[in-house]
Amino acid sequence: MIKEGKVLLNIELPQVVSSRMPVFYNPHMVVNRDISLLVVYAFVGEGAIVCDPMGASGVRSLRFLLEAGASKVIYNDINPRAVEEFKKLLKMHGVDESKVQVHTEDASILLRRIRGCDYVDVDPFGSPIAFLESGILPVKRGGILGVSATDTAVLSGTYPQTCIRRYGSKPLLEAEFYHEIGIRILLKKVIEEGAKMDFALIPIFCYSYRHHFKAFFKKDVGARKADHLIKNIGYLIYCNSCLYREGVSLENLRSTCPICEGKLLYAGPLWLGKLWDEELLKSMLKAMEKLPLSRETLKIIKKISQEAKKQTIGFYTLSAIGERLKVGNLPTLERMLSLVQGKPTHFTGEGFRTLLSHRELLKLVESIK
Amino acid sequence: MIKEGKVLLNIELPQVVSSRMPVFYNPHMVVNRDISLLVVYAFVGEGAIVCDPMGASGVRSLRFLLEAGASKVIYNDINPRAVEEFKKLLKMHGVDESKVQVHTEDASILLRRIRGCDYVDVDPFGSPIAFLESGILPVKRGGILGVSATDTAVLSGTYPQTCIRRYGSKPLLEAEFYHEIGIRILLKKVIEEGAKMDFALIPIFCYSYRHHFKAFFKKDVGARKADHLIKNIGYLIYCNSCLYREGVSLENLRSTCPICEGKLLYAGPLWLGKLWDEELLKSMLKAMEKLPLSRETLKIIKKISQEAKKQTIGFYTLSAIGERLKVGNLPTLERMLSLVQGKPTHFTGEGFRTLLSHRELLKLVESIK
Ligand SMILES: C[S@@+](CC[C@H](N)C(=O)[O-])C[C@H]1O[C@@H](n2cnc3c(N)ncnc32)[C@H](O)[C@@H]1O
Ligand SMILES: C[S@@+](CC[C@H](N)C(=O)[O-])C[C@H]1O[C@@H](n2cnc3c(N)ncnc32)[C@H](O)[C@@H]1O
Ligand SMILES: [Zn+2]
Ligand SMILES: [Zn+2]
Repeated sequence: MIKEGKVLLNIELPQVVSSRMPVFYNPHMVVNRDISLLVVYAFVGEGAIVCDPMGASGVRSLRFLLEAGASKVIYNDINPRAVEEFKKLLKMHGVDESKVQVHTEDASILLRRIRGCDYVDVDPFGSPIAFLESGILPVKRGGILGVSATDTAVLSGTYPQTCIRRYGSKPLLEAEFYHEIGIRILLKKVIEEGAKMDFALIPIFCYSYRHHFKAFFKKDVGARKADHLIKNIGYLIYCNSCLYREGVSLENLRSTCPICEGKLLYAGPLWLGKLWDEELLKSMLKAMEKLPLSRETLKIIKKISQEAKKQTIGFYTLSAIGERLKVGNLPTLERMLSLVQGKPTHFTGEGFRTLLSHRELLKLVESIK
Repeated sequence: MIKEGKVLLNIELPQVVSSRMPVFYNPHMVVNRDISLLVVYAFVGEGAIVCDPMGASGVRSLRFLLEAGASKVIYNDINPRAVEEFKKLLKMHGVDESKVQVHTEDASILLRRIRGCDYVDVDPFGSPIAFLESGILPVKRGGILGVSATDTAVLSGTYPQTCIRRYGSKPLLEAEFYHEIGIRILLKKVIEEGAKMDFALIPIFCYSYRHHFKAFFKKDVGARKADHLIKNIGYLIYCNSCLYREGVSLENLRSTCPICEGKLLYAGPLWLGKLWDEELLKSMLKAMEKLPLSRETLKIIKKISQEAKKQTIGFYTLSAIGERLKVGNLPTLERMLSLVQGKPTHFTGEGFRTLLSHRELLKLVESIK
């Protein structure tokens, strides 16, 4: 028996969690489920209508009912065996069956048959690309879409051609914040899929953890809203030598570094706006006490609530500063944070954000050499 | 009674054809239907499996059966009244009912339930954007997707912000070949929707007529095929003063005209490859004799079969040459064609394509001033 939140699962874990399990359950993804509960609970409160279109074991569905006070859950999985297990789980936990709809079909069809959801959780194996257009549709105005991606290597630049083909954007493995670039490309793609149908999918929260990204969007409706949102889509230019980085529009793409005259690299198109909604974060910090979340989750949320105070495009890492700016006597992260009035990032243990301009940072780095 | 091809329609035409007709039938769209029959007949031959997911009156479905030798037609319309009329039409024409499937549902759901089609015809009111992802899915490898767009004003630049939101590309009304730019943006979007799912939607034929664009694609399957195809997506740079135009990659976008040093405008991303497959055109010219096509259709196909011999990015028009290059004594189109070894374009009556470089064209224009 495995326990996650208030749910007991009758699942035998294999040595290695893989998509070939008869019914998929990944214990590391507790963070993913925790945070989806937390975002929805903080944003919508009790009584939410939740759609879990790739439900697998159904642990997420059940937790929404038992922990986050959802008024209705629409569970689906294309695998009939998963659906059977979920039905058993419902019985075992004595759930009020009038609160649950169970389907066994292709998620992209189900998502086109339903409407009015407060929350839709898109959580497929690998890339969410095939489910984005469908996933946006049943979310009601003001509701939330959650998207998981486990093709983080693609988004972060290990397979740039695949990223271009799948997401329509160039990633940038050369930058020390390549994961953040990957998440910004994912955000862009979701926004683009919404905008083409006159929806505004506004990024409100996202994170990177182990082998997955997760992003949450508030859905608004209307061409003007979408137009306003896509103004924040652009490119990132980056200098491999001096670490200069800047978000720019297509018209302002340049190839020469304004600081060191090195050759600039670029990534994009990608989302240049905020990654986190500060109001939502406040509500999440409050709601956190009311939900049975894992310690790992609490750590991430606390870290991000700090990080969100410096919403920069990209961050610095000690090792990039050491290598590229040739600093032998690197300070500790603690010391660096106080020097630059920075905040650590959750993306990597040695990374930090600062509101200093790049020139200011370089000056400061010179002074500690 | 209206006759189109071999089909008799019991429809009262209102003064103005509009989407508010109880069952939609637009006589001007005979060209659209004709050409879909012709492309499929030339490419697939007899025995094709055809899906007509927004069938309306069903005249297209019926013509595929009666004229183009389709072995099966999957007709659908979300409007039950259209479906009723189509059923009557089937009876009236004594069609073998085993060859016809009739559905009354949302096209984007139907398209996700079926497979193995030789041809899918996406023909909604206005923009096809909401049906592209779905429409690609049921086309079999080597089969054809046909896409109509009546939002040509959006694609061609009258509402640039809408084009950016809907298709993700900047149009360019300033260029004399703005319609071609619009079609190239439509082609890009279909290619992009395919590529994200590892499909290659290869443009094989397209045209602009009255208030619609139509484009046909051969579907191939596989990441490498899609990668190869998207290499032909890029930008168009254009000079308002000297008419200079060139297709370039993002990396080669420039803002100063290499000829006159004027400020360059741009459009894109868009398809920079060929608009027409010459082999297919040959087959179409042959097949044309076997189908009862309208005179208008024959004219367009003949024109395009000439135009396709000079597959340039953009064309010139006499009036642009007159106004922007300040030529008072404009030659006739005939004369111009022989001067530049050009071919007329079907996009506009006074336009022509030439394989001369822009510099060569300018020299020639100087010489006739
Ligand atoms: C990563 S797992 C989902 C895990 C689950 N959301 C959780 O939190 O434990 C992906 C699930 O999607 C299901 N699936 C795959 N393709 C699907 C499709 N087209 N429609 C619906 N479900 C699908 C698989 O059977 C699998 O159970
Ligand atoms: C432009 S007309 C189609 C004309 C037809 N293809 C022809 O050649 O005569 C568009 C049709 O799509 C139908 N329609 C609109 N939305 C639809 C949807 N979501 N699914 C299926 N049909 C739809 C309308 O009822 C209308 O009959
Ligand atoms: Zn530099
Ligand atoms: Zn010029």
